Amino acid sequence: MAEKQTERKLPSRQEDFAEWYNQIVLRAELADYAPVRGCMIVRPYGWGIWENIQQALDRRFKATGHVNAAFPMLIPRSFIEKESKHVEGFAPELAVVTVGGGEELEEPLVLRPTSETIIGHAYARWVQSYRDLPILINLWNNVVRWELRTKLFLRTLEFYWQEGHTAHATSVEAVAETRQMLDVYTDFAVNEAAIPVIPGRKSESERFAGADQTYSIEAMMGDGKALQAATSHNLGQNFAKAFEIRYLDKEGQLQYCWTTSWGLSTRFIGAIIMVHGDDQGLILPPRLAPLQAVIVPIFKTEAEKELTLETAERVRSELARADIRARVDPRDGVSPGFKFNDWEMRGVPLRIEVGPRDVAANTVVLARRERPGKEGKSTAKMDGVAGTVAETLASIQQALYDRALAFREANTHVVTNYEEFKAVVETGFALAWWCGEGDCEARIKEETKATMRCIPLEQPGGSGACVLCGKPAREQAVFARAY
Amino acid sequence: MAEKQTERKLPSRQEDFAEWYNQIVLRAELADYAPVRGCMIVRPYGWGIWENIQQALDRRFKATGHVNAAFPMLIPRSFIEKESKHVEGFAPELAVVTVGGGEELEEPLVLRPTSETIIGHAYARWVQSYRDLPILINLWNNVVRWELRTKLFLRTLEFYWQEGHTAHATSVEAVAETRQMLDVYTDFAVNEAAIPVIPGRKSESERFAGADQTYSIEAMMGDGKALQAATSHNLGQNFAKAFEIRYLDKEGQLQYCWTTSWGLSTRFIGAIIMVHGDDQGLILPPRLAPLQAVIVPIFKTEAEKELTLETAERVRSELARADIRARVDPRDGVSPGFKFNDWEMRGVPLRIEVGPRDVAANTVVLARRERPGKEGKSTAKMDGVAGTVAETLASIQQALYDRALAFREANTHVVTNYEEFKAVVETGFALAWWCGEGDCEARIKEETKATMRCIPLEQPGGSGACVLCGKPAREQAVFARAY
Repeated sequence: MAEKQTERKLPSRQEDFAEWYNQIVLRAELADYAPVRGCMIVRPYGWGIWENIQQALDRRFKATGHVNAAFPMLIPRSFIEKESKHVEGFAPELAVVTVGGGEELEEPLVLRPTSETIIGHAYARWVQSYRDLPILINLWNNVVRWELRTKLFLRTLEFYWQEGHTAHATSVEAVAETRQMLDVYTDFAVNEAAIPVIPGRKSESERFAGADQTYSIEAMMGDGKALQAATSHNLGQNFAKAFEIRYLDKEGQLQYCWTTSWGLSTRFIGAIIMVHGDDQGLILPPRLAPLQAVIVPIFKTEAEKELTLETAERVRSELARADIRARVDPRDGVSPGFKFNDWEMRGVPLRIEVGPRDVAANTVVLARRERPGKEGKSTAKMDGVAGTVAETLASIQQALYDRALAFREANTHVVTNYEEFKAVVETGFALAWWCGEGDCEARIKEETKATMRCIPLEQPGGSGACVLCGKPAREQAVFARAY
Repeated sequence: MAEKQTERKLPSRQEDFAEWYNQIVLRAELADYAPVRGCMIVRPYGWGIWENIQQALDRRFKATGHVNAAFPMLIPRSFIEKESKHVEGFAPELAVVTVGGGEELEEPLVLRPTSETIIGHAYARWVQSYRDLPILINLWNNVVRWELRTKLFLRTLEFYWQEGHTAHATSVEAVAETRQMLDVYTDFAVNEAAIPVIPGRKSESERFAGADQTYSIEAMMGDGKALQAATSHNLGQNFAKAFEIRYLDKEGQLQYCWTTSWGLSTRFIGAIIMVHGDDQGLILPPRLAPLQAVIVPIFKTEAEKELTLETAERVRSELARADIRARVDPRDGVSPGFKFNDWEMRGVPLRIEVGPRDVAANTVVLARRERPGKEGKSTAKMDGVAGTVAETLASIQQALYDRALAFREANTHVVTNYEEFKAVVETGFALAWWCGEGDCEARIKEETKATMRCIPLEQPGGSGACVLCGKPAREQAVFARAY
């Protein structure tokens, strides 16, 4: 099956980015379509990436004092209606259970599209006094949103994510938490996924349904479009009031809590594909790659096979001792060239070739996935091979980040007028002064298909004229077409 | 809130085992009731146990060649109907989604009660030749079964589990897989949870709906009742035929695959509570405890507080360096005795007391949770405290296992006649010759409420007379009342 799939050529990114993306997801066996429209099967290789994402984030969540828990997927329909903006945002996307155990249910249950409401219900019972605060809980789970246009990883009916839900005694603490988690996501994207991101504030129209403030990290994909890679919401007292989450403060006064929520989903895997991939296929950042190195023995005769396989296995076990995730590809009946293509499609960051001459010279050949051809090849001594591989993987990780950042910088332009703006958002990010009015934002969206991605936390200072209406503006915003 | 809860006395196990269980789940903050009947919130402390269970199992699954993936929760209703016994078993328990995105669905979707059907559909597409086999996939997810009588952890509408699904070229391999995973569960129960289990074969009436053979591990709870702690099913070619999972063998012949499935759920947390807990509360086996040791500084004056807290913190950091999960309880305003009770209720395996005299003597006091009172107390030197604690935890782990095994042995009896049988199943396990007929099994169940738990893999050999009908029997079976 692999042989068949890899024989056909991948469409180039230039030619058809959307089809290039789909083909990678299917051919690298990251995910597959499910029998129910819009649902997805995450195959072991794709789930391996998610497991590494989970570990990298979970470590950061726990280091910042959070603990995991699990809340039910089934939520009474009436819960969703308690927060007025929340129901507006989510009602059209709900999946509803009306029958259970053969009987029509008295109250229909919805499959959680997100858990703020059921969290609110529980926190209201758990919190009595200021001593019970803060509550710092994270959930790893699946949610369902009835999307009409779906795409594997990027937008599916059911998806996997983590959702953090915290409750605090003061607004100051909730603000700090919201910003802290935005920093955690930024750190994760940059240092684990090698994806440069712009952390910033969303406009009112792009806020989470029920939030006072939404922050996001925005990344540029290989086609110049934006992808919202994670969000962090300051929910103010909106859910606390809707669900009566109250506490007695030190003075014995009953106060409403301040809550936050924040999430990152399997959508992020789509970002990894679209940021790093090339015309040969997927390229995974070493820190998140389920397989960091593949070792390919190269042989013609039986004697060579035995010799190279033995050395390959020795390399593998040295790498394993150094906690490098590697495997040998011993397949018979397919050529080394076929194997090279196959592993390139799957985005393994480093290939290690072991031929008879390498064995004789006590060396191996390293081939970096992100630099195809001779340029990415080097010879390494068998002595200390694990150290060399570890260094090379770190260098690949850095190179991927540098390349993604250079690409984003080359395709991001500060624009001073609307004509420039329109040209820039055809292929990248426009950084423009914006008056802050929803009307300007809406007209821009309608006329250019570009949305206000975020108001970056980092601002140039000073002021300028709104790119559309010309009124004085104190902040620059990032506009782009988006996934 | 904690103070209030721990003040009330827990009912003793003798007095009211069911209420004792419920109170522990709620007071130790393992889980809570959800707004939807029969659903549960797994609170951080309970989820911490599940995370440790997951890690211990996942390590074993990966060591035996399995990989994780994710399959959709939504399954077309028609899928469930493809395997005739499967639909019989699961149809009455289904939750059905009939509305999505505001529209009535053309085909109702069920929430997975288990994933054999959707797995079958995918494997049929993925498998073409013998080279694609075996497929060894595990899923960690949530499933929904519309149960009428529910109990936290033991039986809930939605629960968490892992379900392994494998496909093989031969029956021999499927049999070996089924048995291998039963061994994995046994090893996990014994060595991680300190729970002795009886691995065995289920009777036809107790088999998984659609299996040729079901194996289980059965454990004895503190009230003498049985709990099925995990199952492993040989599905034969039933699902392969229903879903057309076929492969071309080496001779180019089209063959049906042989499949297996196996699972362990959050129910297992219920088993841990009921096997190890005592009248003071929960007792967690150290290997699965989210918190292995709690360090309680004991002070009266501010000077003592500073002194003992500083030492407590030093102990904690030494334990952390040795990968022992520990924390200090620095709470003001509650007495040491209150703290002792509180952590006993929560089942922390080891308490470490640090008083002013201990600080002066450069020692700490260790108090084992499973041996209340003076008998479980000892003094340890500060020098090398981490080593002493690690040894003590290992000793507690072993003591819990030994105690559970002794209890099971004391309450398991080989019975030779039906009168004996009836008396034994009032309080424990009856080991009895059984003719293998469903009629006898059914009558026994009706008359004694005891079910055939399993036919242990380990048999005494020889033969005897069926405990009910007196016909010749070649195997002994375990009968017990069960959760």
